[in-house]
Amino acid sequence: MNSNTDTSRSTGASAPVALHARTSVEQVEEGRELAPKFDQDGLIACITTDADSGDVLMLGYMNHEALVKTVQTGEAYYWSRSRKTLWHKGATSGLVQLVEEMRIDDDQDAVWLRVRVSGPGASCHVGYRSCFYRRVPVGKEHEAGKQLVFTESSKIFDPKMIYGDAPNPTLL
Amino acid sequence: MNSNTDTSRSTGASAPVALHARTSVEQVEEGRELAPKFDQDGLIACITTDADSGDVLMLGYMNHEALVKTVQTGEAYYWSRSRKTLWHKGATSGLVQLVEEMRIDDDQDAVWLRVRVSGPGASCHVGYRSCFYRRVPVGKEHEAGKQLVFTESSKIFDPKMIYGDAPNPTLL
Repeated sequence: MNSNTDTSRSTGASAPVALHARTSVEQVEEGRELAPKFDQDGLIACITTDADSGDVLMLGYMNHEALVKTVQTGEAYYWSRSRKTLWHKGATSGLVQLVEEMRIDDDQDAVWLRVRVSGPGASCHVGYRSCFYRRVPVGKEHEAGKQLVFTESSKIFDPKMIYGDAPNPTLL
Repeated sequence: MNSNTDTSRSTGASAPVALHARTSVEQVEEGRELAPKFDQDGLIACITTDADSGDVLMLGYMNHEALVKTVQTGEAYYWSRSRKTLWHKGATSGLVQLVEEMRIDDDQDAVWLRVRVSGPGASCHVGYRSCFYRRVPVGKEHEAGKQLVFTESSKIFDPKMIYGDAPNPTLL
């Protein structure tokens, strides 16, 4: 992605997505060209929030293909770092993320998706609505108690019913 | 962080912050112990949102010390990957981020801060309120036009007035 404009065309998708070469700080920060910076593993971080509540649902990663497919289809695709495969979010669970809005940050090394989740509306493989279902006490609350506090009282779905015996993506 | 509980004590700070060893998927996903996973560079990703609007302000990274200081002080600390130093957000600009709430995700490799920003309320070194000041057209909007769309019409501050000749953190 550093020398030439790369125009991707995914089969079955509509308009091509042009990912531009990064030529200057001004172009990257102040320009209107999509010129994402993928890291050494070919990935860009993606923050996904609920379009209605604003809650952060998850932090995922996209490779080139996932970014292009998300732009073309308006549904969230990620790169699964544990399964090492393109991941159409919701393909197994039915909990597809419909992209309301996509943004990119100043140096174009992170994207933000505002989504609406299909079905019962969970985005976490553990079964909760958001992956961020525990609060870390900070400041004065930290002085009073140090254990994590659950912010969701119950799971939206039973992971065993949805994923069966598929390996858990959490790595120690 | 993989074998023993590490209890950090920063000088001048109040209560120690216990970062627990990661012993099982159940402990990490369903437990009440803070057992963060730092990556190969010793960092954990941090999503920072505006506590009132819910807008994503930035994606930063914390090392062990930044995480501990954030928990202890209730103000956001990061690790600056470009300057390779601990970064008390707002120390130069006055735009300190006061942490309303901190959360951690299912596999404890990402945190989410809901913050209130001091002063004029900007969090982006380019001068905008949020680092995510450009929309990427997706789906039907992508088919109609491919350029990024600015979502903030003007900057909150002039970066040159705040940062002077300090090097721009954006890397190509």
